[in-house]
Amino acid sequence: MKNLLSIESLDAERMTAILKLAAVMKSTRGRHAAHPLRHQCWALLFSKSSTRTRVSFEVGIRELGGDVMFLAADDIQLGRGEPIRDTARVMGRMIHGAVVRTFAQQDVEDFASFSGIPTINALTDEEHPCQILSDLFTIIESRGSLEGLCLAFIGDGDCNVARSWIWAAAVLGFELRIAAPPEFQPARSLLEKAGGRILVTPDLRVAAEGASVLYTDVWVSMGKEQESANRIAQLQGYQINGELSKLAPEALIMHCLPAYRGKEIDSETFEANAETIFRQAENRLHTQKAILSLLAQ
Amino acid sequence: MKNLLSIESLDAERMTAILKLAAVMKSTRGRHAAHPLRHQCWALLFSKSSTRTRVSFEVGIRELGGDVMFLAADDIQLGRGEPIRDTARVMGRMIHGAVVRTFAQQDVEDFASFSGIPTINALTDEEHPCQILSDLFTIIESRGSLEGLCLAFIGDGDCNVARSWIWAAAVLGFELRIAAPPEFQPARSLLEKAGGRILVTPDLRVAAEGASVLYTDVWVSMGKEQESANRIAQLQGYQINGELSKLAPEALIMHCLPAYRGKEIDSETFEANAETIFRQAENRLHTQKAILSLLAQ
Amino acid sequence: MKNLLSIESLDAERMTAILKLAAVMKSTRGRHAAHPLRHQCWALLFSKSSTRTRVSFEVGIRELGGDVMFLAADDIQLGRGEPIRDTARVMGRMIHGAVVRTFAQQDVEDFASFSGIPTINALTDEEHPCQILSDLFTIIESRGSLEGLCLAFIGDGDCNVARSWIWAAAVLGFELRIAAPPEFQPARSLLEKAGGRILVTPDLRVAAEGASVLYTDVWVSMGKEQESANRIAQLQGYQINGELSKLAPEALIMHCLPAYRGKEIDSETFEANAETIFRQAENRLHTQKAILSLLAQ
Repeated sequence: MKNLLSIESLDAERMTAILKLAAVMKSTRGRHAAHPLRHQCWALLFSKSSTRTRVSFEVGIRELGGDVMFLAADDIQLGRGEPIRDTARVMGRMIHGAVVRTFAQQDVEDFASFSGIPTINALTDEEHPCQILSDLFTIIESRGSLEGLCLAFIGDGDCNVARSWIWAAAVLGFELRIAAPPEFQPARSLLEKAGGRILVTPDLRVAAEGASVLYTDVWVSMGKEQESANRIAQLQGYQINGELSKLAPEALIMHCLPAYRGKEIDSETFEANAETIFRQAENRLHTQKAILSLLAQ
Repeated sequence: MKNLLSIESLDAERMTAILKLAAVMKSTRGRHAAHPLRHQCWALLFSKSSTRTRVSFEVGIRELGGDVMFLAADDIQLGRGEPIRDTARVMGRMIHGAVVRTFAQQDVEDFASFSGIPTINALTDEEHPCQILSDLFTIIESRGSLEGLCLAFIGDGDCNVARSWIWAAAVLGFELRIAAPPEFQPARSLLEKAGGRILVTPDLRVAAEGASVLYTDVWVSMGKEQESANRIAQLQGYQINGELSKLAPEALIMHCLPAYRGKEIDSETFEANAETIFRQAENRLHTQKAILSLLAQ
Repeated sequence: MKNLLSIESLDAERMTAILKLAAVMKSTRGRHAAHPLRHQCWALLFSKSSTRTRVSFEVGIRELGGDVMFLAADDIQLGRGEPIRDTARVMGRMIHGAVVRTFAQQDVEDFASFSGIPTINALTDEEHPCQILSDLFTIIESRGSLEGLCLAFIGDGDCNVARSWIWAAAVLGFELRIAAPPEFQPARSLLEKAGGRILVTPDLRVAAEGASVLYTDVWVSMGKEQESANRIAQLQGYQINGELSKLAPEALIMHCLPAYRGKEIDSETFEANAETIFRQAENRLHTQKAILSLLAQ
């Protein structure tokens, strides 16, 4: 594995390898047995602000023995309009790997190909592969396996997280139900391309019924603040709350954070499931350490 | 000791332990005997800009063997309105300690309790405990002990630094005189709660007379720029200068920086006492290394 | 050598020492034989954004065993008007060396003298010594030596890069030709002070004819965006392109980046010479590691 640019580009074997290694990383954290990034310096190239992604990658790279440099887009010439292929060619000669958080998927792909160094997609408008791999790890950790998994995604079904779930479901063969109002449903062409057992419905009760995971994400993610009022109006009601949870009494309730109480989840349900949700956040660290280790080999 | 959140919450024994260890840290700097933060990653979470605090903590954490991550509020989701208790719960699972510089004291307290990791107050609107501990160390270093100490604080007596001095004087039992115009005097309720030998006066000559330390701070600190003209007008004359110094000929002259010549101190007095003042800044490093070591145990 | 503040202040012997050590650094990269910055923490103090300079110094300091702290001017009190001599005196007591990227040359000189720690000029309005030393290394690497070097600088002849080339040519005795419109030519007084074999001409064909290096820089560098339209109009035509290259068929074509295709260089020429240009960028790392090593001794 040279890069981690999307779930779309992964096969089941690679995903399984990452998920297995994540468990090892978690159980051995703090024992510092292996330092696969020793003598390496990685850069975090971020065009958007971030808590979980930044902290988990900075800590993870260091725990694997590497050095890390955080570069906000404004700190570097990218913010002044230097083409990504020039920045990539410069960095590829100086650093050993890159974690890129930006808007266009094409920019991450270009960075990877022009830099020639291992590159990780840490969120684009198109996909959020590290989140989904980490969430799969959390599900396995809680349920023992992905066997019989039926994940109900409630909210904006046309966002990067939802798209990565679509590819994961298609590749790994689990059942995915997306409950979203018509304007927030994934493109038909994407669903056809992905294949798999994916149900898209405007009815969140249909999606939730008997699901093994109820999953949601923030309605207004970064870069979408302009459309905020409209999005909130449209997505109103697509909320994980006590009533919805009754339809899936055994379900894990997951949220990739940050959470807006009273919007995509109610406060009571959030706090009642805080152990899962913050473990889900912590697992970013372990899963990304697994990814970094596999890329460094 | 689990956290360092305020001087108010410290007793004399703990303050003495920090001050003694600071001396050891200073005399052994560069010899790298102990690495109590080895295999740890600490975060600096700063909502305000900073030179001394940031540099001293970044260097100190590294000299103790730890890794460090600087997070400006704008870099992380805190800047987008994520509640501090969520940020704290995420970080508490990934990092090993936090140094927080922010506005509300409650935020530091919440961070400490929700994260569960050692947390240091590196300045809030309420207190600046690291500054005061470091200044006490400088006084001991210069005078041999706190025996017979009489500290005259000249200027804004209602700021975080003044409040931390009030608690320090009450706990350690030295004499504190605060010279400030009526609108800039500490609240009566605070003085009553703290107790101790504390004189508050509008007359800076009364405060300075025979004092063993003349101490001042910037008039317009961060976040107060809006009230700048008014503050400068009111505090006019509350200046440490050659004339005032004559009233306390043996006094150490201290300033916690940044200094505005011609305002709280005149240029000649500042430069004549530069050795003390910049040693005072340097001692932030040694004192904070002592604090970090005690929290890491 | 205590500091690296300008090419003007270097002699041929020191420049040669840096260039020789840069070759060693490049050929031994990754083998980590020496760690001259072990147990040291260096600060990057940057008032301007940067890709190459920041990344190359951050990586270089770490590869030499040191720790590094990136401080944007806004992050620290400098951004709030603290005099540089105060910041320098504080930092000099906490850190072990500084890399300063700012506007006034005097600020770097003041930082060096008030801090007392090794200080490197990483670009000022006056000079860009690390760039020129690195470019000299690239030229030696490509041509074997500086023997018979004739460097044609095309574009803004009154910028920091051009001024550093003037001093380099004067000290090392190679031929320098500067092609620039009259308003963008270096000051007569500077040329007289520097001496050496330097031709200044408005005719870029005269400068390029038979040169061994064709060199250009961005027309509108940081801080000059206000004058952008005027600069572009004036410098129009001072472009390295296929036609100009024909006048110097053996010449290395160099660009210190970022590049604006269609302005100072055309896209075809840029891409045809990408190997040289991105090696030139990479050599910043090796050359600066040489400088850091010499200052740390």
